[in-house]
Formats: sequence, C-alpha cells, structure tokens
Amino acid sequence: MSLIGAVEAGGTKFILAMARPDGTIIDRARIDTRDPATTFADTTAWFDGAQQRHGPVAAFGVASFGPLDIMPSSPTWGQLTTTPKPGWSGASYVKALAKYGVPLAIDSDVNGAALGEYRSGAGRGHDCVAYTTVGTGIGTGVVSLGRRLGGVSHLEAGHIRLARAADDVWPGHCPYHGDCFEGLASGPAIMARWGHDLSQASPSQLEQVADYIAQFAMTLALMHMPDVMIFGGGVMKAPGLIDLVGKKTRALLAGYAAPYDRDLAKVIVPPALGDDAGITGAIALGQQALSTAHSREGTSCAHG
Amino acid sequence: MSLIGAVEAGGTKFILAMARPDGTIIDRARIDTRDPATTFADTTAWFDGAQQRHGPVAAFGVASFGPLDIMPSSPTWGQLTTTPKPGWSGASYVKALAKYGVPLAIDSDVNGAALGEYRSGAGRGHDCVAYTTVGTGIGTGVVSLGRRLGGVSHLEAGHIRLARAADDVWPGHCPYHGDCFEGLASGPAIMARWGHDLSQASPSQLEQVADYIAQFAMTLALMHMPDVMIFGGGVMKAPGLIDLVGKKTRALLAGYAAPYDRDLAKVIVPPALGDDAGITGAIALGQQALSTAHSREGTSCAHG
Repeated sequence: MSLIGAVEAGGTKFILAMARPDGTIIDRARIDTRDPATTFADTTAWFDGAQQRHGPVAAFGVASFGPLDIMPSSPTWGQLTTTPKPGWSGASYVKALAKYGVPLAIDSDVNGAALGEYRSGAGRGHDCVAYTTVGTGIGTGVVSLGRRLGGVSHLEAGHIRLARAADDVWPGHCPYHGDCFEGLASGPAIMARWGHDLSQASPSQLEQVADYIAQFAMTLALMHMPDVMIFGGGVMKAPGLIDLVGKKTRALLAGYAAPYDRDLAKVIVPPALGDDAGITGAIALGQQALSTAHSREGTSCAHG
Repeated sequence: MSLIGAVEAGGTKFILAMARPDGTIIDRARIDTRDPATTFADTTAWFDGAQQRHGPVAAFGVASFGPLDIMPSSPTWGQLTTTPKPGWSGASYVKALAKYGVPLAIDSDVNGAALGEYRSGAGRGHDCVAYTTVGTGIGTGVVSLGRRLGGVSHLEAGHIRLARAADDVWPGHCPYHGDCFEGLASGPAIMARWGHDLSQASPSQLEQVADYIAQFAMTLALMHMPDVMIFGGGVMKAPGLIDLVGKKTRALLAGYAAPYDRDLAKVIVPPALGDDAGITGAIALGQQALSTAHSREGTSCAHG
C-alpha cells in the first residue's frame, strides 16, 4: 500500500499524519513549532517511527504557513521566504524531507485547506471554492475546477488595503503595510488594538471587525466569483461574526453582482472539516504528488 | 474552410469580423451601438453579407460589455444582466445569433481581451495573465494556464473598494457603490469630478488617479499573483500614467511579495495588441467554440 505522509505546518503547531491512499488517517501527532532544526528533527523522528509501525511513505504533502516558494522550477522551491516568524526565513521542507526520496507536494496552508474543503468539506460539489483563514495571519486559497490558483506565488490576499471609516484612524498592526486587512483584523491586530480577543469584544468592536471582513469578502467575490467563501481561523469563532459578515457583504455589494444578491448564509460559511481542514488538505496534496508521480511513470513507460 | 464570426461588443461601438480558423481576419466592420434591436439587426445584416462574400460561419465568438450571464447551463445564458446601459438589460446574443445555428462562445470583453493577449500579445509565454481596462467602465479578465477564470460569474474587479486619503472626500460616480474603483477612476468619473479627461489633468490629478490604479494593481497582484498585469482602455492612454502606476504599486507592496519587489515596467504593461485586443479575443473565443464542437463530434464518433 502506498502510504501518504502529511504535514500541516502552522506557526504554533505542526500536525503530522500518515494516511492510506484514499485519505483515511491511520496515525497522527501534534508537535510544537520551535526553531526549524528542532521542529524538522521532531517531524522526521515521528515519520521514522510511523514508517516502522505502518510501512514506507510513498509521497509527502505539506501545507505550510508562509510566505513560501511553491514554484517547483525555482531553486528555492519549498523554502519559507519573507515570513515574519523569527528564524524561519529560508527553512526548507524539501531539504527536511529529502532523505525519504519520495515525491513531495508543497503549498500554502490555506491552499491546502481550500483543497481539503473542495474535496470533502463545505466546497464539495462546487466549481470555485475560496478558503480564508482569519487568525494569527490572514490568507486565502482558491480552488477552481480542482486546481489551486496562483501565478508567480500563492495568493497573499490578507494584505490588501481596505476603505476605512473616516473616524477610524488606528494605524494597524502589519509590519509591511500598517492598516492592510491583516493589520486590522488578524488575531494579533485585535489584541494589540483592544487588549483582548474578539470573544470579549463590545458590540461595536464586533461590528467593526465584521465591517473589515465583509469588505474583504466583497473584494474576494468580485475578484474570483466563488460559489462558496469559507471563513475559518480563530477570529471567526467569535459568536455571531460569520452571520454578520454575510449580511454586511450583501449590503456592500448593493445588488450589483446578481449571484450574491440573496441571503449569503450558504455562501459565506465556516469550514465543514473544522480544525481538520488543514491536515485533510496536506493529505490531498500528498495524493496529488502520488498520482503525478504515477502518471509520470506511465508516460515514461509509454515513451520507453 | 471553417470561418469564425467575431463580435467585440462595446457600449459605444461593435467591431465585427470574419476570420480564418487560424485567427487571420479577412473582413471587418464597425457599427455604432444603439438600442439592442437595431444593433443586432445591423450585426446580422453584416454577417449575412460577409457569408455571401466569404462562405458560411462555422462558429461565433462574442466578447461583450457587461455584466453578462456567461454560464451556458443558465436559462439566461448570453444575456446582459444588471448593466447600467439603458435598454440593454436582458438583451441576448444567443437569441440574436440563433438563426445561424452554429456553436457560440460568449464572455466578457475583458476576458476576451485577456485571452487575446495571452495567446498572441503581451501575455504570450506567461502562465497567469490579467487584462484590465480602465475606460468607460473598469473590468479585469484573468487567464490562467489558458483558462478564463471565474466562478458564478465573470469577474467584476472594477467595483472593489479602495482606501482613500483622509482629505479626499469626493463621493464617487458609481450608481451602485459610490467611490468604488470604477466610481473614482473610470473615464466618466474623471470627467464628472474635474470636467475634463485625464489628458488635460494637472500633475496632482494624474498622481491621484495613479494612486487609485496602483492600489487596484496591488489588490490584483495579491489576489491572483499574475505574471503580467496588462492595463488598457482610454484612461490608460494618459502620458506617463502606466509608469507611475508601476512605481506606486511596488511602493505599496513594500517588499512583501517577493516576485513583485523589482522594477515593474515589464509586469504592469500596455496591451501589445492595442485596440485589437478585444476583437482578437472574440476570435479566440470563436476558435474555442469551434474546437469544443469538433471535440464533441469526436467524442460522439468514438462512442458511436
């Protein structure tokens, strides 16, 4: 049996899993994210043990925090690039997992989650699925007809600028852009601004964050026209927030985009896979690495 | 020979063309856009004549102003939807061209132009190509690996909201959203605000429009990560504007997105096909309609 090794790499924790080719998880673990050397040593130690228990890994899928070089043609493929996380710029999943000598697919955490939700979650049966996390960072992955979208990089939608109310002049928390979306609505931004998280917010604070997220959802709608816009991450767990975002997004669109001129409660939704969206996506990436490797073998046979 | 009929439908004029299967134009005409009944009658009268001169049309491609229902599965496929152009809501290209009984591909004008530039213009050789027109309206089409992106509709990127300078309080010109991008930077918005077009702008007016377009380009970059962002349309013809937009976009991104942290003069570019991007795109749509029809015939033969 061709087993899949999956890594969901977050800024706080790594989730590791072994799965059957159909995606069923047969073993999993959680390790703390420390410096890259320690974290990668813990990761390979766990997979070494898992291989002894279950058999060899045939392909790896990695869904990681970023920004990340996801271009297989690049000399720095699989490396974290301009991440603000200390010590992690230049850390390489390709190098960390090279010793296994098996195919590897790497993408952003949100592309992984979008793929997971598209295959077996809230995006199932839809053509164009967007997954946004609003948590420690903000990012979006879009899967269109099964393909993760991106060009010269994975998307970085969390850093777009937003229109702000004239009386809202807090400078924002993003080290690059100040009051970009992530600088206004991420978990650390909310904490820096108000000294508590959104679960303790006043009604007006909740309204303000909902305004920002709704404006982002409007932009995402106009820029991608997704069938479904999934919003996950810690900030989105605040009671009532996602319903408020749906109502405000419709109001902002003002009837212009006909497909969204309706109750958006079935369009702007939480992840169906909950906290398992990420690892499910990493497994899906591993499945793609495996099938690509198989089809290459097929091609090579045909040519031989 | 399987000839292609192509229609580039704009708010002011329709460009009609007959082309060989390889895309070479053999006949073309320009008609004024009036009410739908008159304009469609003029269109079919020209194609009737062109068929007598050159032979029968085997497929049509239509690249039209919008918004437009481009979902072939929809009962209103090929109709204009919430267009602000008087009399045109509900006008149907499918009905207008039904009498020819040939395959038809319909998409937004900017999707057509993006496809044209991707195939034979400034997007040639690139994987992800965005085409934006800043003219009477503002819209963007994105072609990724040959496929026009969209979900429940074609994109409507011109209507995103932007961060505005605190001292810039002009309410904007969009009937739906006031100061959305189109409400601030389209040709009619510029005319309504200053009483003249951008060719007569003061340096500070040019700077302000460049700021808006650069912020849009930043959002487009973060939302799609295109290899190349093509900007066409009447407003973009203002001398110096596109260079200014490139410089401002890089400054706004502030080094965050590594692939764009360089001189953007080869990333933010004018259309290589100039004013022919639209009709070239309409022809490309017709070519796709023809090849889809052929492959369906192929499939049907294989099954028969």
